[in-house]
Amino acid sequence: MRMTSRPEHLLIEHLGAQLVTVGEEIPERARHDWSGQQPVCPLAWIRPRSTEEVSAVLRICNELRLAVVPQGGLTGLAGGAHPVAGCVALSLERMNGIEEIDPAMATMTVGAGVVLEAAQAAAEAAGLFLALDLGARGSCTIGGVLATNAGGNRVIRYGMAREHVLGVEVVLADGTVVTSLNKMLKNNAGYDSKQLFVGSEGTLGVITRAVLRLQPRPTFSTCALCGCRDFAAAMALLAAARSGLGPSLTAFEVMWPSFYHFMGEKLPSLPQPLAGRHGIYVLIEVSGFDAEREAERLEALLAKGLEAGDVEDAVVAASGRDVAAFWAIRESVSEYSKVIGKVAAFDVGLPAHATGQVVERLEAGAVQRWPDAIALSYGHVGDSNLHFVANVPSAGAEQPSAEISAFVYETVRSSGGTISAEHGIGTLKRQYLPYTRSPSELDLMRRIKSALDPNGILNPGKVLEWPPEPEAGTR
Amino acid sequence: MRMTSRPEHLLIEHLGAQLVTVGEEIPERARHDWSGQQPVCPLAWIRPRSTEEVSAVLRICNELRLAVVPQGGLTGLAGGAHPVAGCVALSLERMNGIEEIDPAMATMTVGAGVVLEAAQAAAEAAGLFLALDLGARGSCTIGGVLATNAGGNRVIRYGMAREHVLGVEVVLADGTVVTSLNKMLKNNAGYDSKQLFVGSEGTLGVITRAVLRLQPRPTFSTCALCGCRDFAAAMALLAAARSGLGPSLTAFEVMWPSFYHFMGEKLPSLPQPLAGRHGIYVLIEVSGFDAEREAERLEALLAKGLEAGDVEDAVVAASGRDVAAFWAIRESVSEYSKVIGKVAAFDVGLPAHATGQVVERLEAGAVQRWPDAIALSYGHVGDSNLHFVANVPSAGAEQPSAEISAFVYETVRSSGGTISAEHGIGTLKRQYLPYTRSPSELDLMRRIKSALDPNGILNPGKVLEWPPEPEAGTR
Repeated sequence: MRMTSRPEHLLIEHLGAQLVTVGEEIPERARHDWSGQQPVCPLAWIRPRSTEEVSAVLRICNELRLAVVPQGGLTGLAGGAHPVAGCVALSLERMNGIEEIDPAMATMTVGAGVVLEAAQAAAEAAGLFLALDLGARGSCTIGGVLATNAGGNRVIRYGMAREHVLGVEVVLADGTVVTSLNKMLKNNAGYDSKQLFVGSEGTLGVITRAVLRLQPRPTFSTCALCGCRDFAAAMALLAAARSGLGPSLTAFEVMWPSFYHFMGEKLPSLPQPLAGRHGIYVLIEVSGFDAEREAERLEALLAKGLEAGDVEDAVVAASGRDVAAFWAIRESVSEYSKVIGKVAAFDVGLPAHATGQVVERLEAGAVQRWPDAIALSYGHVGDSNLHFVANVPSAGAEQPSAEISAFVYETVRSSGGTISAEHGIGTLKRQYLPYTRSPSELDLMRRIKSALDPNGILNPGKVLEWPPEPEAGTR
Repeated sequence: MRMTSRPEHLLIEHLGAQLVTVGEEIPERARHDWSGQQPVCPLAWIRPRSTEEVSAVLRICNELRLAVVPQGGLTGLAGGAHPVAGCVALSLERMNGIEEIDPAMATMTVGAGVVLEAAQAAAEAAGLFLALDLGARGSCTIGGVLATNAGGNRVIRYGMAREHVLGVEVVLADGTVVTSLNKMLKNNAGYDSKQLFVGSEGTLGVITRAVLRLQPRPTFSTCALCGCRDFAAAMALLAAARSGLGPSLTAFEVMWPSFYHFMGEKLPSLPQPLAGRHGIYVLIEVSGFDAEREAERLEALLAKGLEAGDVEDAVVAASGRDVAAFWAIRESVSEYSKVIGKVAAFDVGLPAHATGQVVERLEAGAVQRWPDAIALSYGHVGDSNLHFVANVPSAGAEQPSAEISAFVYETVRSSGGTISAEHGIGTLKRQYLPYTRSPSELDLMRRIKSALDPNGILNPGKVLEWPPEPEAGTR
């Protein structure tokens, strides 16, 4: 019995059962991303093996007006890859080939489904360095990293994902393949259209392949953990690190006591390299090409900071084991589900000088509203990026997430910040986008969306509302 | 007598004579850019003093369907700012305010009409560093630099103009003002629309203000001039410089003998720091934060190069005067009009490994076709960017420019290069754009153009043909 009137059967008929999975056979992992939303079973889960197959999928979905949600490693925290009801989940996981490493051009060409860590390892094996790095490196894929313009730990030195990409191949909503696998550092031949797709969270096209820029591999890297007097002292240390270390400064991570001590208490296995309590904690990483000199400069920086009273205590890693231990404190964020349960997690950008006061307002405001609130602050402060997470233990499963979001985003708005520094908008932050973007900026985004995806099949409801609604109140 | 039926009078009537200049009063400088094309007197020359005035100009031009050619410092070599018949030349020169320098954020906010050199000086006065730099620094403006995504001397370290801009304000074709003066390094709140305008050569919107990213100011900089064995040796030196100097390598300029000796002979006042003749010449600049160490590393690099036979002779600058002298050789390109006359000038991008052979083919091919041809090669080879200029003395004013262009671009196409690395497309390279961009890439550009400027008033005929023509042969 053929039932070609049902769209999932049409998909199987046109694309084949090798590509298309439907119903109960769709695995759990395709039904949700890391945004914490309720799983949604898509209409179909499609895993093409080539650009041509991606094109075929989009062509038919466009004809059938089926929503398409592109999926990479599903590690996004904003809901960008979370299925919507009745959608086709388009997984790029089979397009995981490292197609070429070109040492002369210092580039690598990869499929969208390559896991970031695998790309890093391949670059290293070729004597080069893929500087892009983030906590989800073991699961996130290059396609997702580019589609969300991911940030991570080394932005202060190497920039966001956007700055690591030289070329992309994308498939547009109507199935058109646009191959721009440029390898050259400079190519001003017309519009640099790839910039549109980087950071558009799969709403303008599906990235299928990419050319990434590789760097000379630093021959030396170390880090130091510092206990500083207060936020102002950490900012003074940042300024001194920028001018004293220049491009050797490859990470500057700040942890407020709320985060540092809470995680230390909850996870007794975490190292405690510093004695006593301090006003704020900083993890500084230096990387370079001259071990002795880099180490000297780091020591000099810390000595000056100690002398000035900005730094109260500091430990420099003496081994790779120390480096891993120091980073383990910062990366203990992956243990929230174990030590706290569900958290409302925020990724906001702030003018650097405002960050200290904003954290005070956020932490005090949370406890004022929910007296037993757990509110933890940390972030890539060197890049104007603060992470803040909150949980209200007494609320149990009924976390006041919407109220916490409103409170956080109002605070950020009043400080001239952005509601998303590196995680994107997805669905979770969409209603707050007007806090950061003006009506004319939003109109421009909608104009671009309409031009590239007139039927609105690509990741509908992500970033922008769909169907577009006039925002009478805000114009 | 009112003659409101004539568009230039309508412009004066609506915008006022303070903004609008017409007829013979339009100065010579507004009638041409540096592309060498015949001057064209625009219908009107309009110089708004504010974003609101730019908006008013575009609104009325859009209503009247008048072509608008945005103009900055008019130093472009591809014709992007050259007036077209019957157009309004929209000069941003009055919007030349350095509005703010924010030391905490390391940003500066400037009007589009600020001259690059003035912006550099203002950053330096604030103890910071605007790393964007190019030969035309004394005339080119920030608006033009961004609109063309200009490159220049320090791309190898700091990237193209795109990487120096954090926020822009643009006025769209219909007069809509989109203000996105973001200062944060990370802001993933929706599409990063500014990327559309950077490098679009004024065809998608008019940039009125910008936030530029500033850097820590290196405390030390020096350079060395090297005579190398051949192109392969220069490439070996580049690889060694990348890994040995890391981010201290801030320029790597290659000059072929054709250029180096020709300019030396024609300009006897140019310094001749190296003895003898060599296969190729390299200018290396290092900048950093530790004079002694940077100098040591440069010396070590050169010593290794000499030992390996890649470097045949090298001179390290001993003073600021030496630095200026070495750069004067490279920057003697500004003297072409004096020493050669009119040249056909090319700015192409090439896969690094192919560059040596391409230069051989270009120089030999030019002389084969035009036996007395002067063909000079040099460029930012560290960024895959070659400049090539040609002149045929015997042809006098009747230079075979079209034939030379066809020859050069065919050669570049067959080598997998791009017809524009940093100068843009303008009008001069438009017909060759399909050599570098595929039909689907061009279609995508047209789709973006139509979405943002449906009446095609913005810089018509620049980058893309206008009105759009179906390219039957290439689809």
